[in-house]
Amino acid sequence: MPEGRRRVLITGAAGRIGQDLTGFLKDRYDLRLHFNRTVPEDPAVDDYLIADIADFDQIRPAMDGIDSVVHLAGEPAVTTPWDRVNRANIEGLYNVYESARQAGVKRVVFASTNHVMGMNDRDENWPVYSSQPVRPDSLYGVSKAFGETLGRHYYDRYGMSFINLRIGAYGPEPRDEIARYMWLSPRDFGQLVWRCLESDVGYATYYAISGNTSRTWDISDAVVDLGYGPVDNADEHLPPRYRKIDAAGES
Amino acid sequence: MPEGRRRVLITGAAGRIGQDLTGFLKDRYDLRLHFNRTVPEDPAVDDYLIADIADFDQIRPAMDGIDSVVHLAGEPAVTTPWDRVNRANIEGLYNVYESARQAGVKRVVFASTNHVMGMNDRDENWPVYSSQPVRPDSLYGVSKAFGETLGRHYYDRYGMSFINLRIGAYGPEPRDEIARYMWLSPRDFGQLVWRCLESDVGYATYYAISGNTSRTWDISDAVVDLGYGPVDNADEHLPPRYRKIDAAGES
Repeated sequence: MPEGRRRVLITGAAGRIGQDLTGFLKDRYDLRLHFNRTVPEDPAVDDYLIADIADFDQIRPAMDGIDSVVHLAGEPAVTTPWDRVNRANIEGLYNVYESARQAGVKRVVFASTNHVMGMNDRDENWPVYSSQPVRPDSLYGVSKAFGETLGRHYYDRYGMSFINLRIGAYGPEPRDEIARYMWLSPRDFGQLVWRCLESDVGYATYYAISGNTSRTWDISDAVVDLGYGPVDNADEHLPPRYRKIDAAGES
Repeated sequence: MPEGRRRVLITGAAGRIGQDLTGFLKDRYDLRLHFNRTVPEDPAVDDYLIADIADFDQIRPAMDGIDSVVHLAGEPAVTTPWDRVNRANIEGLYNVYESARQAGVKRVVFASTNHVMGMNDRDENWPVYSSQPVRPDSLYGVSKAFGETLGRHYYDRYGMSFINLRIGAYGPEPRDEIARYMWLSPRDFGQLVWRCLESDVGYATYYAISGNTSRTWDISDAVVDLGYGPVDNADEHLPPRYRKIDAAGES
């Protein structure tokens, strides 16, 4: 293994975000990819495996020799019923964290979600800061809050680094008015994950959104702690929301 | 059912806290008692049942006709391994909350624990307020944090009331120096649960400790919100910790 090329495992690499992230990170790290069920046609790297994360013995070998894990695997939909969020996002996440610990992994970057705080959005209780108490809008959101809490415990107890990224509305284009608040472009997410992997942060939770002018979730902690510099902005893709004001204050 | 006598279910009523609480509440409410495995000899009330809370169909009938639930059932020890905290304190707690919702229960008072924040105590990072982000010291603490979060979601989503009580060191006598920080006497806990059941609080988390002079966890929110007036004080049972100072400031 060459010096200075760290080995990074991406779990759930067959998903939309996983595929984009693989493309962004594969020249920066020696990647290993985890797939839940099937190997996609022509995987981007040679080092990959299939495992059911709800089965500890299946996922444990994925961690051998790994420096950092980007944990994307899990049920991704806000409407997922309890049995499935419990199996993948609670039991499966525990297996990923515990097997990573046993294998000596130093850091986990966790794909959390804005839905951990979604009730603030329903109430338009803005701005939202990652330091506020959680208010999940769904059992899916509750399960992701569990992941953030388990990471906090593993950080405090074992000294592993955990960075939770509360992902907004991910996609190549901002689709609607809601994107002003929460759009996350693939390249901004790639940058953010890369900055997490390179940082010296021990434990933190950040909102993962682009530099949308109208955002209602705080990203200044990611800017300051990680040097995150988003290059995309949903407001630039959408009709003007505010009149432009000149220097004299006249429209 | 007589007007004005509300029906309260105590889960895990065979435990030490459950037995004390049954004695404290049985003249105030029409109690139903839930036991995990066996019915204790001579149960204090006639309305009781046995159910495994990890089995939804077993616990669901316990909720019929119930106004409020005091949820004590679950693994009580800080050293409990994952499989058991997951089964009782995550899956079992979900079943209790979801079956209560389906039956129209209005309120749950939840036996949470100081171990949700125990890493602050290990670091002597005091005082601790219930509004701070969680720092569990154990998988047990993580599982209780899950319970607090699920309650938050059910409150926001369904309008049910959830009050989380982070129980300290429960017992008839303060046993050691640590009791100065966290002793909770049975009669103070009885009073606190009773005040929760009578309150108009929607969602809150409180420390459940006696009025110990040297406490490092805040209880002023319980004093203000609920009218909690603890009558016990560990410092009065232990050797003096501070010299007495007279009004002139001389010892």
